[in-house]
Amino acid sequence: MKVSIIGVTGYSGLELLRLLSNHPNVEIVSIHSHSQNGEAIDRRFPHLKHLIELPLEEVDPEKIMDNADLVFFAAPSGVAKDQALPFIEKQFPVIDLSGDYRLKNPAQYKKWYGKTSAPIEALEQATYGLADFDLPKDLKLIANPGCYATAAILSVAPLVKQQLIEKNSIIFDGKSGLSGAGKKLSEASHYTEANDNMSVYKLNQHQHIPEIVQQLQSWDAEIPAVQFSTALIPVTRGILMTTYCRAKEGVTGEEVRQAFEAEYEGKPFIRLQDGQDFPCIKQVVGSNYCDIGMAYNEATQTITVVSVIDNLVKGAAGQAIQNLNLLMNVPETTGLELVPVYP
Amino acid sequence: MKVSIIGVTGYSGLELLRLLSNHPNVEIVSIHSHSQNGEAIDRRFPHLKHLIELPLEEVDPEKIMDNADLVFFAAPSGVAKDQALPFIEKQFPVIDLSGDYRLKNPAQYKKWYGKTSAPIEALEQATYGLADFDLPKDLKLIANPGCYATAAILSVAPLVKQQLIEKNSIIFDGKSGLSGAGKKLSEASHYTEANDNMSVYKLNQHQHIPEIVQQLQSWDAEIPAVQFSTALIPVTRGILMTTYCRAKEGVTGEEVRQAFEAEYEGKPFIRLQDGQDFPCIKQVVGSNYCDIGMAYNEATQTITVVSVIDNLVKGAAGQAIQNLNLLMNVPETTGLELVPVYP
Amino acid sequence: MKVSIIGVTGYSGLELLRLLSNHPNVEIVSIHSHSQNGEAIDRRFPHLKHLIELPLEEVDPEKIMDNADLVFFAAPSGVAKDQALPFIEKQFPVIDLSGDYRLKNPAQYKKWYGKTSAPIEALEQATYGLADFDLPKDLKLIANPGCYATAAILSVAPLVKQQLIEKNSIIFDGKSGLSGAGKKLSEASHYTEANDNMSVYKLNQHQHIPEIVQQLQSWDAEIPAVQFSTALIPVTRGILMTTYCRAKEGVTGEEVRQAFEAEYEGKPFIRLQDGQDFPCIKQVVGSNYCDIGMAYNEATQTITVVSVIDNLVKGAAGQAIQNLNLLMNVPETTGLELVPVYP
Amino acid sequence: MKVSIIGVTGYSGLELLRLLSNHPNVEIVSIHSHSQNGEAIDRRFPHLKHLIELPLEEVDPEKIMDNADLVFFAAPSGVAKDQALPFIEKQFPVIDLSGDYRLKNPAQYKKWYGKTSAPIEALEQATYGLADFDLPKDLKLIANPGCYATAAILSVAPLVKQQLIEKNSIIFDGKSGLSGAGKKLSEASHYTEANDNMSVYKLNQHQHIPEIVQQLQSWDAEIPAVQFSTALIPVTRGILMTTYCRAKEGVTGEEVRQAFEAEYEGKPFIRLQDGQDFPCIKQVVGSNYCDIGMAYNEATQTITVVSVIDNLVKGAAGQAIQNLNLLMNVPETTGLELVPVYP
Repeated sequence: MKVSIIGVTGYSGLELLRLLSNHPNVEIVSIHSHSQNGEAIDRRFPHLKHLIELPLEEVDPEKIMDNADLVFFAAPSGVAKDQALPFIEKQFPVIDLSGDYRLKNPAQYKKWYGKTSAPIEALEQATYGLADFDLPKDLKLIANPGCYATAAILSVAPLVKQQLIEKNSIIFDGKSGLSGAGKKLSEASHYTEANDNMSVYKLNQHQHIPEIVQQLQSWDAEIPAVQFSTALIPVTRGILMTTYCRAKEGVTGEEVRQAFEAEYEGKPFIRLQDGQDFPCIKQVVGSNYCDIGMAYNEATQTITVVSVIDNLVKGAAGQAIQNLNLLMNVPETTGLELVPVYP
Repeated sequence: MKVSIIGVTGYSGLELLRLLSNHPNVEIVSIHSHSQNGEAIDRRFPHLKHLIELPLEEVDPEKIMDNADLVFFAAPSGVAKDQALPFIEKQFPVIDLSGDYRLKNPAQYKKWYGKTSAPIEALEQATYGLADFDLPKDLKLIANPGCYATAAILSVAPLVKQQLIEKNSIIFDGKSGLSGAGKKLSEASHYTEANDNMSVYKLNQHQHIPEIVQQLQSWDAEIPAVQFSTALIPVTRGILMTTYCRAKEGVTGEEVRQAFEAEYEGKPFIRLQDGQDFPCIKQVVGSNYCDIGMAYNEATQTITVVSVIDNLVKGAAGQAIQNLNLLMNVPETTGLELVPVYP
Repeated sequence: MKVSIIGVTGYSGLELLRLLSNHPNVEIVSIHSHSQNGEAIDRRFPHLKHLIELPLEEVDPEKIMDNADLVFFAAPSGVAKDQALPFIEKQFPVIDLSGDYRLKNPAQYKKWYGKTSAPIEALEQATYGLADFDLPKDLKLIANPGCYATAAILSVAPLVKQQLIEKNSIIFDGKSGLSGAGKKLSEASHYTEANDNMSVYKLNQHQHIPEIVQQLQSWDAEIPAVQFSTALIPVTRGILMTTYCRAKEGVTGEEVRQAFEAEYEGKPFIRLQDGQDFPCIKQVVGSNYCDIGMAYNEATQTITVVSVIDNLVKGAAGQAIQNLNLLMNVPETTGLELVPVYP
Repeated sequence: MKVSIIGVTGYSGLELLRLLSNHPNVEIVSIHSHSQNGEAIDRRFPHLKHLIELPLEEVDPEKIMDNADLVFFAAPSGVAKDQALPFIEKQFPVIDLSGDYRLKNPAQYKKWYGKTSAPIEALEQATYGLADFDLPKDLKLIANPGCYATAAILSVAPLVKQQLIEKNSIIFDGKSGLSGAGKKLSEASHYTEANDNMSVYKLNQHQHIPEIVQQLQSWDAEIPAVQFSTALIPVTRGILMTTYCRAKEGVTGEEVRQAFEAEYEGKPFIRLQDGQDFPCIKQVVGSNYCDIGMAYNEATQTITVVSVIDNLVKGAAGQAIQNLNLLMNVPETTGLELVPVYP
């Protein structure tokens, strides 16, 4: 399959290059950037020298559709909602890594992103590509989930689906490395400010909240809301999500574990930790895994779940390729069986 | 006042040296270490050269009581419970930075520390030195609070004291820098393992849990238990504690803020953030401050509080000096008005 | 003494605040910033809350001279060369932390800074304030040395002054933490780029080169040039300078050490390491020390010197206060006897 | 080809697992560790779960030779010198990643490693596997170069081979991430000590010095000695080597560049930077590349070369696989065309 990548110079776009260069069924035929000038990408990103030396091109939908079979949008939110329309109209396959096609409700997009959404007809064609759960075949437009959202939803899916918890008790405490904030320069991502520091931001205001609620409500419409904290920790890659919820009266720790085991049986990218072990970020960096550990505290009736992902892989480019594999009808692990880069 | 320090070569002991060297009313007359050999401390810790060049001495209680007016124990838990007894018997002032005299109940010490506690007569003489709350005068034995415990208790004290929250709803999600784990070598504190990583440990099993519960129950005996997570983040100094609790029906965000303002009015080392701001670790490093921000989410009825401290200062040596000031009857800020080392 | 600070919101300016707040003879009467708006500085920098709550003011030279006895310029290069002129004209004491008054030769300033220098009459009044060497009394305009320059000059001064090395053999290999690059946002200082990385920049092109050569030539006019590398390492504060030079035929390792001991005898802020020990960055962070270790390798006739400083203290604000003490005729250690913040 | 790995639980051994799992011609048939107990490796290293679940076995040379075609030794120095002998005697292919077979002269091994070397007959059969230079075919025992040595030799090979520099002028200033120090716990690798720090160690005493000199002298027997500094920087992976040498009279910058281009023409893992660009560590992490930049300063007649590698890949496991490819007579890039993990 021939693919093009729009927004390739961001961290998610670069990660698509890294992962796709290892994919046996994919050829990258063109790469695109707003700051394009025909320059070869390895001139700007010397880590790609000898490996990927394609020129950065401007975005010409017709030309892309002529040469490629699918296009990735790896641009920041607000780009694909307009620029993907020519592709969507022609039913040309699109995988969008931004938030532009994740929310079904245009008003929610407006509220959380502060912009007008894509046309509702386009939103209706999109599928939220939570790749570890069964997705329909023959998709043309996949909205790849957000990084925090992926870690959050996977940490709680078995509990919600199997109705083991008090519906109004879900608290997500997320911590992310700085690459999640992208390449945009800001005081918060200045080395001197971020190093040896940890800071909480956008408490209850992060734009991944509505896609989490939307997905959880698709499993249990009575989930009213979630509590959601986000924080920056001084690591380059990785999210560690700590999730707290109150078990329903009578639920046991054993039932909690069984729920996870049943739900994630046979899902290659979800790895449950043994016993009382919790995963750490480093054990997934560079890979598409989501590792999960859990504990139940009878004294407080609280279930604690810890999930970790590499925000640029499982939280972005890797899950996008998992979705691509679905579209190509090849095993979902194709090109993604990468050993985490430990240490 | 002349003081001696036992266990001076640990991080808390070294921090006592740093802070006391700035204290106008204190003279350090002797320093002690198990690995003592008469060597001058600046030979082993070159950062002290030209500043503190005292020899490391073995512990001789009689000699210490002859020369000093007070002794700090900065040794790991399990040392002071035995070695402080000669001082306690003579009513010689002791400030212990370990966990050995914090718990009133010997069985609790046994359960959480895995050792036999100090004799109950000694425990009874100890006061839990939460220095920002009113302590009695004329103390002889102060059990300096733990670092996590300090950040946790301060984050929730106004809510507990003013009964604004559901009593069984307190969740502490703590994150600590590596200096909190001390100088002992371990895989978890190996640079290659800890760098660019975050890991959860001792979930619901951390030894600071019982002192938190003990203190909260002193304010509201009906607090049944707390949920407590601890995690390592790749910073040298600092704790960021995120605390979640469910507001009682009818409590407003405004009441929550007023509770904090009323409780911490006039307390020099507690700094409340404005409005919806949350503190970050870097704004307190090197200082004795505990900075606190809070938010109330009506959608989930959840109060989120974020508190930050330098674990070696407010969480150890700084609070110990605050307690020393109390004993000396000098203003509690004496020697502690240090500007945080930012950036 | 009453002082004002211009450019207080940069890292050097903030460090002046931290250090001066500990100085018994100094009162800060006003603080100034281009981005001033009357806001209290602790609103913008919460680490200062309860400590320094002065308003940020615009720069009004007349008003400053009315209220203060001395002014610090802590602005980036290119500001003081114009804005300090009203003070210089009135012989009002100025300590400038930028590069604007360091070079005697206007053409050199033009070459290395890419701008027109201050008027030559102003340059002539300036003294290069290398505070550990004897400076004249009654100075009115002090050009505080650069951070790299301080570490470099101090590492080689005894060897140059005592003519122990081949004059054309000096190689400085400097590594700096990111705070040395200031608060300006750039790709190089973006956390995701700088973390877990090291990069060489401005090789032989750093603007501190001419002040180093100027100072070394003041001791030995035959020093022709120096080799100078600069690199960013992922630390917040600190410079480690490795200096290589070729010993003159017949010079022994013992003579090398004696040169350092003789030169730095009685200088309180220079600490020579024992024997074959080399200093590390952490042993000086937060303090005004420059720690130096050295070795002589007979096999290659090469002397290696390692010097470390905190770039914001000894390399900026601390040395400026050392110079201030000189002006005030108080002991040079006044307000600067700070224990390094270790670990 | 079937391979076994001895010493698999060290960082180099784990990196062999990561890289070999991506190699199309290799099957890992057994893994071995001194601390073996039959436990599956993914129990101890959860990052390997679902990927490599082989049991850790004790070392039984006969059994290994029965089942495998080649054995890697990834143990610390001092192990292979004894344990590899049964394999060497049987002419069974061995690639040793330690220093045990690198030095031809047993006295040198004794001097730098403080131990008795392998028998001289074994040393004589070993080839120093500097994989980017032509190696003979049909090797049975390859001594894989050290990490610092690789970065050092590659930075200066063209200059030495083409005799462009003063023979006694080579200075290597090396900086390494902490994984280079291995998994052994030590104060220097304790997070709290290493973070936000840089420290020089083993100046002129590092055990990689003799292999560098041995290799350089194989190209120019008149190279007398080299100056060699090593330092720890707070990164997990990566070496940045800055090399200084004095150009021979009359040599131009253009000739220097041409020497590098001629020497490294067609070598897939050496990437020369353009113009005055210097490489940074991050652009090679996770990959087998050695990126090199250089500059010539006429004012000081000094050539500066900067080379970067991932110490665990090009400096250990990756170069070992390059050597394996040579032995298997497959293209040297097989299994090694990995995009660096940037950022």
